[in-house]
Amino acid sequence: MRIIGKMGNRVESNLDLSERERFKTFLKRVAERVKVSEGVDAIENILRCIYRNEPVSTKRIGQYTKLPLPVVSKVRSILERSRILKRDERGAKYTEYGRKLVEDNLGFKMKRDLKCPTCGGRGIILDERFKEILKKHREYAKLRPTVNTRIDQSHATPETAVYRAALMADRGDLEGKRVLFIGDDDLTSLPTAMTGFPEEVVVMDIDERLLKLIDDVSRREGLNIETVKHDFREELDRKYWGGFDTVFTDPPYTLDGLKLFLSRGVEGLGEGGEGVLYLAFSHKPVEEYLEVQRIVNSMNFAIYELIPGFNIYEGSEIIGNTTFLARLIGKDLKKFKKEEIDLCRLYTGEVRPTIRYYRCLKCGKVYRVDGKGVVIEDLTCECGGRKFRMIKREKVKER
Amino acid sequence: MRIIGKMGNRVESNLDLSERERFKTFLKRVAERVKVSEGVDAIENILRCIYRNEPVSTKRIGQYTKLPLPVVSKVRSILERSRILKRDERGAKYTEYGRKLVEDNLGFKMKRDLKCPTCGGRGIILDERFKEILKKHREYAKLRPTVNTRIDQSHATPETAVYRAALMADRGDLEGKRVLFIGDDDLTSLPTAMTGFPEEVVVMDIDERLLKLIDDVSRREGLNIETVKHDFREELDRKYWGGFDTVFTDPPYTLDGLKLFLSRGVEGLGEGGEGVLYLAFSHKPVEEYLEVQRIVNSMNFAIYELIPGFNIYEGSEIIGNTTFLARLIGKDLKKFKKEEIDLCRLYTGEVRPTIRYYRCLKCGKVYRVDGKGVVIEDLTCECGGRKFRMIKREKVKER
Repeated sequence: MRIIGKMGNRVESNLDLSERERFKTFLKRVAERVKVSEGVDAIENILRCIYRNEPVSTKRIGQYTKLPLPVVSKVRSILERSRILKRDERGAKYTEYGRKLVEDNLGFKMKRDLKCPTCGGRGIILDERFKEILKKHREYAKLRPTVNTRIDQSHATPETAVYRAALMADRGDLEGKRVLFIGDDDLTSLPTAMTGFPEEVVVMDIDERLLKLIDDVSRREGLNIETVKHDFREELDRKYWGGFDTVFTDPPYTLDGLKLFLSRGVEGLGEGGEGVLYLAFSHKPVEEYLEVQRIVNSMNFAIYELIPGFNIYEGSEIIGNTTFLARLIGKDLKKFKKEEIDLCRLYTGEVRPTIRYYRCLKCGKVYRVDGKGVVIEDLTCECGGRKFRMIKREKVKER
Repeated sequence: MRIIGKMGNRVESNLDLSERERFKTFLKRVAERVKVSEGVDAIENILRCIYRNEPVSTKRIGQYTKLPLPVVSKVRSILERSRILKRDERGAKYTEYGRKLVEDNLGFKMKRDLKCPTCGGRGIILDERFKEILKKHREYAKLRPTVNTRIDQSHATPETAVYRAALMADRGDLEGKRVLFIGDDDLTSLPTAMTGFPEEVVVMDIDERLLKLIDDVSRREGLNIETVKHDFREELDRKYWGGFDTVFTDPPYTLDGLKLFLSRGVEGLGEGGEGVLYLAFSHKPVEEYLEVQRIVNSMNFAIYELIPGFNIYEGSEIIGNTTFLARLIGKDLKKFKKEEIDLCRLYTGEVRPTIRYYRCLKCGKVYRVDGKGVVIEDLTCECGGRKFRMIKREKVKER
C-alpha cells in the first residue's frame, strides 16, 4: 500500500505548506485505517516516540504512547510500506526520507526525552528500605497464581507494586493509617505491609488463590494482613464500613467496573466521610477519560495527583502495558446505588468482546479463544503444551 | 495556651488508645483554632513535614504542605506552646516529647521523603538545551515589571517557567505547534519560544509593560513572538479562534477567573474543536478542588496529568508558594457563556477581600492595605521608602 503517492521520490524538495497538508491528510488516513480513537494524534505520538528513541521496539512504543500494541504494530507496518520507517533487530527507526518528512512537516527537533532518568518520570525513588522490600517482593511475586482474564486480572510488575507502596508512604497515606485493598491481584498489599507503616492492612478479593498466598506470606513475614474473600458485586460487610483511611484499587477498566469498585472503596472510607483513594486505571481516549473523571467527581472524589504510565503490567498488551495512578481525596463521599451499575458490563470481555488467536509454543497449533466460554488460562494443547503466544485479535461487533 | 493539659508531663507513659483519641482531639482543636479548611489533615501534614525534614523553615513547610504561610506559622506557635515543637535559627524541630507523641499516636516512622532528588518530584529534567535557556531566562526575568496584585499577578520563579517549557516539549506539545498564552506574567513564553520548537507563539495579556518586555526580548533573541494586548473579559479577536494547538494559562485562582481564562483558551483551540491546555492553579481544599474539576470537565477537558507543587512562586505567601500544573486534553470543546461568569468575582481580592498590614523597611511605619483602593505596589512611605514587609493579614467578612 502506498498512501502518499509520489512523495516517496521527493526527498530533496523544499516542502511547502501544501506538502504539509498532504502529510497531515496521510496521517489522518493512517489513523482511520487502524481505527484508533485518538485519531491523528496517536499516529503523531508513535512517530515522536520513534524519533526520540530509535531504534525502539513495538512494546516500548506501546508503553510510551499508551496505545494498544496491535495499533502500534499496524501503524509500523503502514509506515514501513510508505518508506517512512524501516526496522532492524532492535526495532523501528526512520529512513532518511522519513526523518526529513517528520522534521519538515511535524516540526520534530527534540532528539531525546526529558523524563527524569532517576525516577523514570514517576517523581519518586526507592530508598534502602524500599529496595530491600523490592528484593523480597520479587521472589513472592513469582508465586502469583496465573491470571484469570475473565475477571480482568493482569499482573503489574513487582517494581510497580513497590513503587505504589512508596508513593503512598511518601504522600503520608500509610503511616498509622488503616489501609484497604479493593482487589489485589498485583499483591500490592505485601510491599505495603512490609513497610511496617500502616496500622492495619485488609485485602478483599474474590480469588481465594490470591488470598491464600497473601496469608502465607503474611504469616511468614509477620505482616498481620487480614484477608477477606469478597465478591464486589455485593456490599462490604457493615463492620468494615468507615473503617479505613486509605484505599487502593486497580478495578476492571470499564465504567461499570470503576463505579462498582469505587463504591466499595467509599464504603470502606465511610459514606458521607472522607479519605484517600488510589486508583489505577487505563489510559483512555478523551471521551472515555471524561466519563471516568465525571464518575470520580460525582462521588465527591477530587483528583489531587495523576501520574500517567505509573503502573506497568506484564503481558497485558491490550492496554499498552501501562496505566495511570491517581491520588483521589474525597469528602462527603457518595457511592453509586445498585441500580446505577450494570453488573453485566463489569469486565472488558463483556463490554468489548474480543476473539484472540493463540499459537501453542510447543507444536504450533492455533486456538481461537473468546474470553468468555474459553479463556487462555484454561487452555491445554492436544500436544500437552501449556504455553501460548497471542498471534491475532479481533473485536466482536457489539450486538 | 496549653491544650492537652497534663500530657506534657507524661513522656514516658505507655500511650494507650484513649491517649491516641486525646491527641487526635487536640489536633482537631488546633485545626479549628487556625480555621484551616483542610481540617485535621492539614495539621498532620505540617507535623509530617517537620518529622521528615527538621529543622525546616515556615516557608518550606508551606511549599511542602501547600498550606498558606500564616496558617503554618500559627500552627507552629501553638505546637511550640504545647512543647511538641521547638525552634532554632534553621527552623522548626521536635522536642523529644513531641517526637514520641507523633510516633506513638500518628504512627510516624519515615524519616525521609521519597521525592526524586534529581527532578524534585516533577518527573522531568532539563537537558543542555534547557539549561542554556534557564541561564538566559534568569537574566530576562530580572527585568519583569513589579506585580500588579489587583489582577492577581505573581511571579513564578525563572526555573518554573523553564520547567513548564520543558514539560510541554517533552509531552510533544511544542514541536511544530501553534502555542497561545492566555496571560503571561511569568514570561513562560520566553523559554518556550527559545526552544525553537513551536511554529508560532502568541502572548495575550492586559499588561502593556509585560508585552513590551516580551517584544524587546523577542526582537533581541529573534524569537518571533506575537504579542496582543487583550482584556480577557472580552472574547478573543475572531481571527485567533481555532488557531492554536496548545494553550498555557495561569489564571486568577477563583472559580470565575478559571471559567473566564479557560473559555478564552477554548476560543484559541476552537469551539467544538480539540487541543491541549496547560493549567496552573492553586491547591485547594477538597470542596473547591471538586468545583475546579467540574468546571474543567464541563468544558470537555479531561485531566491527563496533574503534578502537585510544580509551579513555585516568588513571595506569593498567600497560596503557600506552589500551585499544581495540569495537562488537559479537550475534544468537542465548550466555553462558558458570558452570563455564566461573574466578572465581579474574578480576582481573589474580590472574592475574599483581605486587609494586609505592611511595615516600611526603612522607617518602620505601618500601613493598612485593602488590595482594592490601595495596593502594595502603589505605596510609598512618608520617609520615601518603597520596600515593605507584610506583618499581618485579616480577612474581611463577606458582605
